[in-house]
Amino acid sequence: MEAKKLQMYSQDELREALKETKDAYDAFQAKGLSLNMARGVPGTDQLDLTAAMLDAFPSDASPLSESCDVRNYGVLTGIAEAKKLFADILGADPDEMFIAGNSSLELMFTCLQISFVRGIAGCEPWCRQEKIKFLCPVPGYDRHFAVSGYFGAEMIPVPTDENGPDMEMVKQYVENDPAVKGIWCVPVFANPTGIVYSDETVRAFAALKPAAKDFRIFWDNAYCIHTLADLPKAPLTINQACAEAGNPDIFWQFMSTSKITFPGAGVAAMNTSKANMQEFVKAIGIMTIGYDKVNQLRHVRFFGNAENMREHMKKHRALLVPKFNTVLNKLNEEIAPLGIASWTNPKGGYFISFNGPKGTAKRIVQLCKEGGVTLTGAGATYPNGNDPDDSNIRIAPTFPSVEKLAQAMELFCICVKLAALEQLVK
Amino acid sequence: MEAKKLQMYSQDELREALKETKDAYDAFQAKGLSLNMARGVPGTDQLDLTAAMLDAFPSDASPLSESCDVRNYGVLTGIAEAKKLFADILGADPDEMFIAGNSSLELMFTCLQISFVRGIAGCEPWCRQEKIKFLCPVPGYDRHFAVSGYFGAEMIPVPTDENGPDMEMVKQYVENDPAVKGIWCVPVFANPTGIVYSDETVRAFAALKPAAKDFRIFWDNAYCIHTLADLPKAPLTINQACAEAGNPDIFWQFMSTSKITFPGAGVAAMNTSKANMQEFVKAIGIMTIGYDKVNQLRHVRFFGNAENMREHMKKHRALLVPKFNTVLNKLNEEIAPLGIASWTNPKGGYFISFNGPKGTAKRIVQLCKEGGVTLTGAGATYPNGNDPDDSNIRIAPTFPSVEKLAQAMELFCICVKLAALEQLVK
Repeated sequence: MEAKKLQMYSQDELREALKETKDAYDAFQAKGLSLNMARGVPGTDQLDLTAAMLDAFPSDASPLSESCDVRNYGVLTGIAEAKKLFADILGADPDEMFIAGNSSLELMFTCLQISFVRGIAGCEPWCRQEKIKFLCPVPGYDRHFAVSGYFGAEMIPVPTDENGPDMEMVKQYVENDPAVKGIWCVPVFANPTGIVYSDETVRAFAALKPAAKDFRIFWDNAYCIHTLADLPKAPLTINQACAEAGNPDIFWQFMSTSKITFPGAGVAAMNTSKANMQEFVKAIGIMTIGYDKVNQLRHVRFFGNAENMREHMKKHRALLVPKFNTVLNKLNEEIAPLGIASWTNPKGGYFISFNGPKGTAKRIVQLCKEGGVTLTGAGATYPNGNDPDDSNIRIAPTFPSVEKLAQAMELFCICVKLAALEQLVK
Repeated sequence: MEAKKLQMYSQDELREALKETKDAYDAFQAKGLSLNMARGVPGTDQLDLTAAMLDAFPSDASPLSESCDVRNYGVLTGIAEAKKLFADILGADPDEMFIAGNSSLELMFTCLQISFVRGIAGCEPWCRQEKIKFLCPVPGYDRHFAVSGYFGAEMIPVPTDENGPDMEMVKQYVENDPAVKGIWCVPVFANPTGIVYSDETVRAFAALKPAAKDFRIFWDNAYCIHTLADLPKAPLTINQACAEAGNPDIFWQFMSTSKITFPGAGVAAMNTSKANMQEFVKAIGIMTIGYDKVNQLRHVRFFGNAENMREHMKKHRALLVPKFNTVLNKLNEEIAPLGIASWTNPKGGYFISFNGPKGTAKRIVQLCKEGGVTLTGAGATYPNGNDPDDSNIRIAPTFPSVEKLAQAMELFCICVKLAALEQLVK
């Protein structure tokens, strides 16, 4: 059946193919595989790459940073050395960096929380505004959507292409509707599509003239150095673009070492203008006395500098490329000939974004689950879990071994065919 | 002038004493001391006590806890071993523990945030309620007051004596006013008075029948094992009292290792009923994927068990007792004979609470500052910084060396006398 496109099949052929595929599915199910591929979780081999960091701050090392004795209270904004390290990665000013604990998601949440509870930029807090809205480029990251949903935002899906979100639509909303308070962006190796926003897109963001003074771009640069292939050039940074546009207060930028060192014990960082930072620090200083500076200094000592951190990512790349290729090869072999689906071939990041026939994503995910492989829920890449085409599935190849992943993809391809055939057989 | 009480002085004697004290102040100021005693910060010698913890999780140790590979994502509520460790300290059920990052203040803040943004116990979120109120036993902890102030709460001071807050007043407010949503408690070695709530007080808390379903006791057990002297018996715990009273959902309890291991890199824990925990976990799971489990396991491995953690506190005690004695001796020598002030003699915790003549606290703090010693701001121990008597000053003896502390207390006593004399001289 791999020889021609599914749409060329006769009903008899489809019925025959359905039976064959159902048999293959049953046979697979009998194997009793159990694998969770729901989230973008590094593999154990990736965690081992950073093992030596656990020794990078032993008891006989000095506990002093330029800023303080890192063991004690204080230095809410993070130690100077960590600011420099992360600023170098982002091409930003160390004075415009805030270094936190292990969660950049928590920093994003906190930015919304401050706007919701207290208000920023002299605006009424969101909790006292009639309605707030967030723009959500789709497909996107479910945890982003969950954060804006938590604060009661109406979420507006914005289509994306290979250059980023539809900037005409973004501009229309941001510049005309004062209820629009933010947009979620993963500008480099986006979750889940893997696209890198073009410089033109980044400049269009920097040029926005929001109707709401408290509108901010939430620029989640989670995968900024997480390459799987060489890029022809470094993408334009939001900080540089906004500086050039004279629009420095329009963004919060985030990154973390969750997928550089340890997801459970990394360091998160935020970059924004000095004016934004001042408001942020004042508010967050109510919530905490400071973040784990011992771990900040441990990271600084492990890496030494930004160049070494970039070098370290090559080790991740070496482990991840075979996994991504396993997924892509399987899709190319099993699904491409049928002409029923499309998927991305990312140059970085953690995901492959798969679009099956309309109306099959939920069914594919269900079939996979019953066959022993848990995928990211269908719809998760859309606000409120609502993919209008029921088509997009996020594939997260990083956690399983190549061998397990090959098995999982075998199942996945069977399930895609099965769902497509179920739809076509009359 | 130390021979008799100040109130017995004639105006001539007062004028003479004022001149002498002013000279002493000027002489002290000339020394150019510079010391910050504003916060309850451990001394470097205390930090060194925990140095070996930095080696407690080296690269050749297993990264596995009972719960997971601690380096990776997941296990939002904390690793099983850490739950057991902190549960043992609090006499609580490990299933009713949440283990977080380095900040218990952040956990408290988050409890308020959830109630404010989303609402708990089926109640309208605070952001949509007309008014909310918090009871604030005084003198108390300024950071608590700042948190409830951040969320717009009206703060009602509640007097405390050696047994805890005025429970008649607490009961009146909590049981009759549905706008009262919380009370801040530091039940053991309170900040700043050092008192330990009596079992009767704890039982009165557990017996409260709040008018508001979303009223909670914020039980900040920050100093639960931070003894400076042996107690005749262990205080009744809020968890036990509330279980006995059949009122398990009325409290959030907090502790951390900030003053056990490292303030900058400790572990915070929360204890509450399973029903409260379920609501909390659902909400906090929007904010973060999980806390630093590497540091949780590091703590578990360093201490082994709760008994060893209690033993460890004896080392802190050995360093702190001489510091507290330095303060108390100086006050006893210099101020007691004058009959103008009172202060606490705590059996644990981080502070001595000093009450000067009415209307002098601000002046004393100002004089100390100009003399080179920064104290906690006068009024900080009251909501909105408003000490109606302008009398209470929190003394934080832990950070300076004994030698520096003796100097600082010399200045402090001069300033107390000076402020008192300024008031009395007509």
